[in-house]
Amino acid sequence: MYRSHTCGELRAANTNQEVTLTGWVQGVRDKGFMIYVDLRDRYGITQLYFDEDQSDVSLMKEAQKLGREFVIQVTGKVQERASKNPNIPTGDIEILVSKLTILNQALLPPFTIEDETDGGEDLRMKYRYLDIRRNPVKESLIFRHKVTQEVRNYLSNQDFIEVETPYLIKSTPEGARDFVVPSRMNEGQFYALPQSPQTFKQLLMVGGMDKYFQIVKCFRDEDLRADRQPEFTQIDCEMAFVEQEDILNTFEGLTRHLLKEINGVDVDKFPRMLYDDAMRLYGNDKPDIRFGMQFGELNAVAQHKDFNVFNSAELVVGIAVPGGNSYTRKEIDKLIDWVRRPQVGALGMVYCRCNDDGSFKSSVDKFYDQDDLAKWAEVTGAKAGDLICVLSGETNKVRAQLSALRMELAERLGLRKPDEFAPLWVIDFPLLELDEETGHYHAMHHPFTSPKPGQLELLDSKPGEVKANAYDLVLNGNEIGGGSIRIHDKATQAIMLKHLGFSDEDAKAQFGFLMDAFEYGAPPHGGIAFGLDRLVAILGGQETIRDFIAFPKNNSGRDVMIDAPAPLDKEQLEELNLKLDL
Amino acid sequence: MYRSHTCGELRAANTNQEVTLTGWVQGVRDKGFMIYVDLRDRYGITQLYFDEDQSDVSLMKEAQKLGREFVIQVTGKVQERASKNPNIPTGDIEILVSKLTILNQALLPPFTIEDETDGGEDLRMKYRYLDIRRNPVKESLIFRHKVTQEVRNYLSNQDFIEVETPYLIKSTPEGARDFVVPSRMNEGQFYALPQSPQTFKQLLMVGGMDKYFQIVKCFRDEDLRADRQPEFTQIDCEMAFVEQEDILNTFEGLTRHLLKEINGVDVDKFPRMLYDDAMRLYGNDKPDIRFGMQFGELNAVAQHKDFNVFNSAELVVGIAVPGGNSYTRKEIDKLIDWVRRPQVGALGMVYCRCNDDGSFKSSVDKFYDQDDLAKWAEVTGAKAGDLICVLSGETNKVRAQLSALRMELAERLGLRKPDEFAPLWVIDFPLLELDEETGHYHAMHHPFTSPKPGQLELLDSKPGEVKANAYDLVLNGNEIGGGSIRIHDKATQAIMLKHLGFSDEDAKAQFGFLMDAFEYGAPPHGGIAFGLDRLVAILGGQETIRDFIAFPKNNSGRDVMIDAPAPLDKEQLEELNLKLDL
Repeated sequence: MYRSHTCGELRAANTNQEVTLTGWVQGVRDKGFMIYVDLRDRYGITQLYFDEDQSDVSLMKEAQKLGREFVIQVTGKVQERASKNPNIPTGDIEILVSKLTILNQALLPPFTIEDETDGGEDLRMKYRYLDIRRNPVKESLIFRHKVTQEVRNYLSNQDFIEVETPYLIKSTPEGARDFVVPSRMNEGQFYALPQSPQTFKQLLMVGGMDKYFQIVKCFRDEDLRADRQPEFTQIDCEMAFVEQEDILNTFEGLTRHLLKEINGVDVDKFPRMLYDDAMRLYGNDKPDIRFGMQFGELNAVAQHKDFNVFNSAELVVGIAVPGGNSYTRKEIDKLIDWVRRPQVGALGMVYCRCNDDGSFKSSVDKFYDQDDLAKWAEVTGAKAGDLICVLSGETNKVRAQLSALRMELAERLGLRKPDEFAPLWVIDFPLLELDEETGHYHAMHHPFTSPKPGQLELLDSKPGEVKANAYDLVLNGNEIGGGSIRIHDKATQAIMLKHLGFSDEDAKAQFGFLMDAFEYGAPPHGGIAFGLDRLVAILGGQETIRDFIAFPKNNSGRDVMIDAPAPLDKEQLEELNLKLDL
Repeated sequence: MYRSHTCGELRAANTNQEVTLTGWVQGVRDKGFMIYVDLRDRYGITQLYFDEDQSDVSLMKEAQKLGREFVIQVTGKVQERASKNPNIPTGDIEILVSKLTILNQALLPPFTIEDETDGGEDLRMKYRYLDIRRNPVKESLIFRHKVTQEVRNYLSNQDFIEVETPYLIKSTPEGARDFVVPSRMNEGQFYALPQSPQTFKQLLMVGGMDKYFQIVKCFRDEDLRADRQPEFTQIDCEMAFVEQEDILNTFEGLTRHLLKEINGVDVDKFPRMLYDDAMRLYGNDKPDIRFGMQFGELNAVAQHKDFNVFNSAELVVGIAVPGGNSYTRKEIDKLIDWVRRPQVGALGMVYCRCNDDGSFKSSVDKFYDQDDLAKWAEVTGAKAGDLICVLSGETNKVRAQLSALRMELAERLGLRKPDEFAPLWVIDFPLLELDEETGHYHAMHHPFTSPKPGQLELLDSKPGEVKANAYDLVLNGNEIGGGSIRIHDKATQAIMLKHLGFSDEDAKAQFGFLMDAFEYGAPPHGGIAFGLDRLVAILGGQETIRDFIAFPKNNSGRDVMIDAPAPLDKEQLEELNLKLDL
């Protein structure tokens, strides 16, 4: 062992012990007769010093050579410090070095190894191994480990079995695009990397495993939006002989356990909200309920006058911004510009100030009188001092626009507190979703989701109205998990696939094994999958996942550190019977 | 919840409780007035009965419809049995059913769902979800879960952090062939699936993570030998600021913990054996030391006569087979046939009977007298009643042949006891290995392995003699783990890559990121990786890994259940800019 102690553990009680430490040079302060070195490892920082009066000339000279990030080993005596540093756990002591070995030199790092670094995102990703030395990244990775350990131990204690499912599987157009892997041994054929272990976990239920989980990498070849990764990690779970209520209770238990153990937060029973209500009240299927600002639908109180913008709209809807009446005209204009940005896409915004004296002042006073506006305030829950923001248009679009505005304003108002946790079940999702481009319905969750009892018949007449036994777990405005009760009989699965546009032939080729399995005694079953990257980030009080992933890829799906992907050798392509067709 | 209890938990103390159970029909015994049903789930089997005197006619009729593997839900009263079954935990009770619901019917399964099934390997793999219902497979998967939980908790308690490394990386000719993944977003470029997270775990050490582990899937596109899988699982570990001794002690601790917790076996300090000694004494770098039968090298006592077969051999080597003198001539002839099979490849075998009266009788009595043979017995440790088997030829080949014979005989003699555990460290592996086909040396472990201190200089003059800081952990004749202290400076890594035939350009293209990282303060580090599939199988007392993998592939790398790999759609190939070239 190169060391007797880590850089995080020595205290005043260790005074006068001879110790050996290893680590990286965080910084050097050379006062001539005294040289101070901060030595850093994963566990902390310990101050070393070299003293002209007590050390060899050669040792002083060696110490003078030290540069930032040099890897060294030192032996010395623990001394109680005269002036203690209360900011670090080892601040009571320092080490008078008697022996120094440079284990490895270091070039000057391209950015500072400090909590607030001068390195930009690109540089940090290229030198990710240096970025990981920084506390915020290092602590995020350690935090992720703690969360996964808690998850595994909790689920294991509940009789869940972690089962590894294969990575080399079959390509199925289950939603997103698959990454594929050419098979050398099976000419002209390809494996696919799993988008999720969905079918395998269902087969494990058919196989009687009863309670399954797996923390597992999944892959989707999507055009990457910000903060998405082509490979991501799921906590994948499935249970047999359960109804939706059992799944909700079980995984509410897991989430409550994590909030308690990881964040020290006690949360009561999670509220539940119907999907339709979430859309109506928050314009969004993953509402952040840490704050109010619920939508007020204003059609009834805003379409009775001559304001054509509202009259021609499918939906007129507003929110009350707490204290928003203090916004200047300029600030409100900026807000209007914000909702008109192409990313939001509103055509404009109507507003109404709620004055302290109980009067109202709106941007559409020409059309609406004080009584009208009072009703707006009533419907949106606005109080004196608030600002009512109103959007209008096609229902789905205007809800999304107002939801974006609501989140933006909450962010600005500091209502999205990272240390406050508001979990929420959103239930009764629609089974199908209309693809506006193609006019076809596709599965909102996936093709294995069970419709609500008795609603199968609606598939033909009113496909958009069929509700599913599907649910999402939402935390602070993020979907952290989603799942459903599955279909477990061949006939229903066949009907579903037919409605999703599969020919009998395609259904058999792609999901024949699953439908066959349903004929050999499939139990009722259901499950859920959590997005681990996001769950960990949110528990860690962050909104972006990148620092919780050791080696993330950029938005082009590249690992800029190892420079992947990369061209293949000609021989490799030949062995795989492939030709590039660029 | 569909059930109040599982099929494994009811006892006499539950008598008279009304319970609801779910599960699969293991079997039905219809006695006309009484129908008995064994109901099975993951947790056990509970006996149900329907009684003409106590049940509706309709219930009796419904029960008569039940077939094997039907999924049912029953409600009824727990009764203490008149004649108890001591062979199952629930054998004291049975359930008088008052309500029966068939949750799902089942076709007759293609093989029996019993510990000893009538299904062949191929059929079991096609219907793996049924195979998993069988206790031996189900228990193996649960056992695997227990082992991984123990590993994770042990390592976490020792401050190891599990860090997920990426699956979409860069192809490097690090040993075996890579599986590759075409990138749609980066035209003409490919990711590779990791053969191991080797370079990433080293970068984590450069990044200061100090102690890393990961239970992780790895991929090798090899022509599959029996009991190999294209995807397999490793317990991958790395530590910084350590020497070989620290790694051996740490992971000896882990292995001892597993043997204790999983198998209830206490094992003393693991013996260590030099690689050279393992080859000399067992002809093998992973000796099974649960039994003796060490090699005796006979050159000195067998090359002094006119027997040209021995005189022209590089090595004459024998083993004593305990009690082998009882073999008939016919049995010995069969043994000779066995070593001459192409899989073993010996040209022949000389033998010597050690008679109870102290005399010897050999197949080469023409050349060797009793004194000669007494020396053979001395060197091989043969006692009266034993049989000495002697092979000769080129050293490496003859060692491999005799090792195969030793293992075969031990198997036949029942010396390879599955409940006996003999771990062993094999250390001081050669750094390089001669590829006899190409005449080139390649890395025996991998290109990142550190040579023993001071031996770098031998690379030019005697490359085959350079020893590495590399070690394997062997358990019962199987390599369960292997690792090394790594190179951690750019200059040494460059020398190694040069000796392995990499041009400067190739070295930079493939490992430039690692060598760059070594310039920014890389600590001394080393690690080990365990083959989880095999480790679990051996701890479970098995030699084959297949039942410890939920969904294994066959020897052509196919998943016969889902029928993968499979052809891709033309559109998918086009999107990837690929053409088949068959």
